[in-house]
Amino acid sequence: MSKLPNISTSIFTVMSKMAAEHNAINLSQGFPNFAVDEKLTAIVSKLAQEDIHQYTPMAGYPPLLSKIALLVKDSYQRNILPETEILVTTGATQGIFTAIQALVENNDEVLILDPSYDCYEAPVLLCNAKPVRVPLNNDYTPNWETIEATCSEKTKMIIINNPHNPTGKILTETDFEALEKLLEKYPKIILLSDEVYEYITFEQKHISVHTRELLRNRAIVVSSFGKTFHITGWKIGYLVAPEHLMMEIKKVHQFLVFSVNSVAQAAISAYLEETSVDKISDFYQQKRDYFRQLLSKSRFKLLPCEGTYFQVVCYEAISNENDVDFCKRLITEHGVAAIPISNFYENGKDLHLIRFCFAKDNTTLEEAARRLCKI
Amino acid sequence: MSKLPNISTSIFTVMSKMAAEHNAINLSQGFPNFAVDEKLTAIVSKLAQEDIHQYTPMAGYPPLLSKIALLVKDSYQRNILPETEILVTTGATQGIFTAIQALVENNDEVLILDPSYDCYEAPVLLCNAKPVRVPLNNDYTPNWETIEATCSEKTKMIIINNPHNPTGKILTETDFEALEKLLEKYPKIILLSDEVYEYITFEQKHISVHTRELLRNRAIVVSSFGKTFHITGWKIGYLVAPEHLMMEIKKVHQFLVFSVNSVAQAAISAYLEETSVDKISDFYQQKRDYFRQLLSKSRFKLLPCEGTYFQVVCYEAISNENDVDFCKRLITEHGVAAIPISNFYENGKDLHLIRFCFAKDNTTLEEAARRLCKI
Ligand SMILES: CSCCC(=O)C(=O)O
Ligand SMILES: CSCCC(=O)C(=O)O
Repeated sequence: MSKLPNISTSIFTVMSKMAAEHNAINLSQGFPNFAVDEKLTAIVSKLAQEDIHQYTPMAGYPPLLSKIALLVKDSYQRNILPETEILVTTGATQGIFTAIQALVENNDEVLILDPSYDCYEAPVLLCNAKPVRVPLNNDYTPNWETIEATCSEKTKMIIINNPHNPTGKILTETDFEALEKLLEKYPKIILLSDEVYEYITFEQKHISVHTRELLRNRAIVVSSFGKTFHITGWKIGYLVAPEHLMMEIKKVHQFLVFSVNSVAQAAISAYLEETSVDKISDFYQQKRDYFRQLLSKSRFKLLPCEGTYFQVVCYEAISNENDVDFCKRLITEHGVAAIPISNFYENGKDLHLIRFCFAKDNTTLEEAARRLCKI
Repeated sequence: MSKLPNISTSIFTVMSKMAAEHNAINLSQGFPNFAVDEKLTAIVSKLAQEDIHQYTPMAGYPPLLSKIALLVKDSYQRNILPETEILVTTGATQGIFTAIQALVENNDEVLILDPSYDCYEAPVLLCNAKPVRVPLNNDYTPNWETIEATCSEKTKMIIINNPHNPTGKILTETDFEALEKLLEKYPKIILLSDEVYEYITFEQKHISVHTRELLRNRAIVVSSFGKTFHITGWKIGYLVAPEHLMMEIKKVHQFLVFSVNSVAQAAISAYLEETSVDKISDFYQQKRDYFRQLLSKSRFKLLPCEGTYFQVVCYEAISNENDVDFCKRLITEHGVAAIPISNFYENGKDLHLIRFCFAKDNTTLEEAARRLCKI
């Protein structure tokens, strides 16, 4: 008997493993393949020699908490208290799991958009709560009417993801106005806002839920240095939440992991003084544009991409296979790995869409596109 | 409303913070204050320059999994399969939380010895399960009769801690025989064995639950490189469990944290080739003996210490205060921080006992003892 009978090995593990076995170009699991900033690796090499190898305080290394407060001040346009409103986490995944465990109770309902990134359901199920999926519109914007119609007294939390993985959609002012109206009617609903791609947005700017006066007192923001600084292996991110929620989250955090890798925390803290997040979107926009241009000669149809480092494409013109089979064949016959979009739907809805990660050096993108254009 | 109404900031955070505020010698929270092995820090400095900054596979960096299999082979006297029986975790705490979340269900009972380290209860409560405390004997050995009398069809798990924090007790062959007999009657009970101090034992050798043929197919062992290699800040440990349990644990792990810091994993993997765990007990035995000798001139009564880097003492001859008040006064008036043993009891039982951590350089131990001998 299993507590999670319907959960198996995540698609990212499956596809990355298969890509390695077949020596395929891995555009499936989202991680960069280019070198990390030398400034950052130099900091680590130096710090390793210092006295930074024991537990940091539970909520985070104090200088890092202060730097995060400065960083978010720019996007939120207000002050966040490092001592009470920020928690450093072992990556965004741990932040999400911990927030859900701390706040969602037996029989609560948690609204999850469909499609969605795959790490929201398991923690809800482990709380004996019910994940309730609400379909996005066909253009992947949230349908606020359906969301409202799904809300009830049982709804404890709504999880949003902005920019959205896998579709790259960004929430607009209009979305937030609709959300505010909706939440006025349900004063107890908490928002969990997964904003790990906040610094990877293109034509439009990202709006954090914490900039919204009517929402921030009930919203937890999830952020990821792994995504921001191309160091997914470091497993370091943070949560920002009002104190009354953060108190509960910290109770769980202290017995779930206690604290986060001290060397990584000290390194990010030092790096935040030497770097800026301003150019990250430009960097990825060039990658996006280049990859789209390379694929424009292929038979894949490109969907819009407003943010994240993922490009969704439709392979309808190429094959009738379901997206999982198509992805497998893409690896074995064409040497490129992708993620089937059905994986992000509650019921595995197959629209003949797959997702490529373009956080790769240009040579990799070129060779992948060369292979994809031959299909 | 809180899911954990009776849980507040952990005593380790409270005491370490108070120690810092009063500039006291911190013998409270368990962490070493001496330099980390230069070989290990050199490895980190070098690795930081390499391509080791993206996600490792979910269960762990494959070379590290193989090295762990070799390491445990020595103590278990048998082969463990790296692919299916080992999981690298963000410290022992995350391993414990994840194992409990994966295996303990609604209304299950989980047996926890009293006194116990403080991280076992919260994950049980978050599963809507019931932690059931079973008092240790007066000499801190487990009372297998009471444990057996407490077991029932509802019991899903028994948590043992060997060597035991805070009492330093080590389980013997006789203990394991009693445990085996007991578990024969309850084929469904799972053992969670917290063995993070396995390499810090003195007169007697540590016996892992995984050496016991009758137990290993239902036992999860928790280990910690933080304790073993004096790097508590790194947050890296591992679980060893039979595949049928590990499958469930991995399901939760992949959505709780996904993977562990890649630099730390690669560094430990390289370090395991250059170091040995054979001398760790000798190193700490010298510390224990030295600290005990230094305190022999004090009015504190020293309890036995068979393992761990903690020394429990009785202050009865000095004061009638409860142990929390005494610890506070020890910081403010005498400049030494300790942990009150009442913290480890379900009902805060106060026996006028406090715990000192002796994982400190000799100068620190000498100065602490100088202060303690004056009381
Ligand atoms: C934790 S592995 C998945 C990485 C990721 O964020 C993605 O590929 O969407
Ligand atoms: C995670 S802080 C507590 C450290 C420790 O293991 C102890 O002091 O007992």
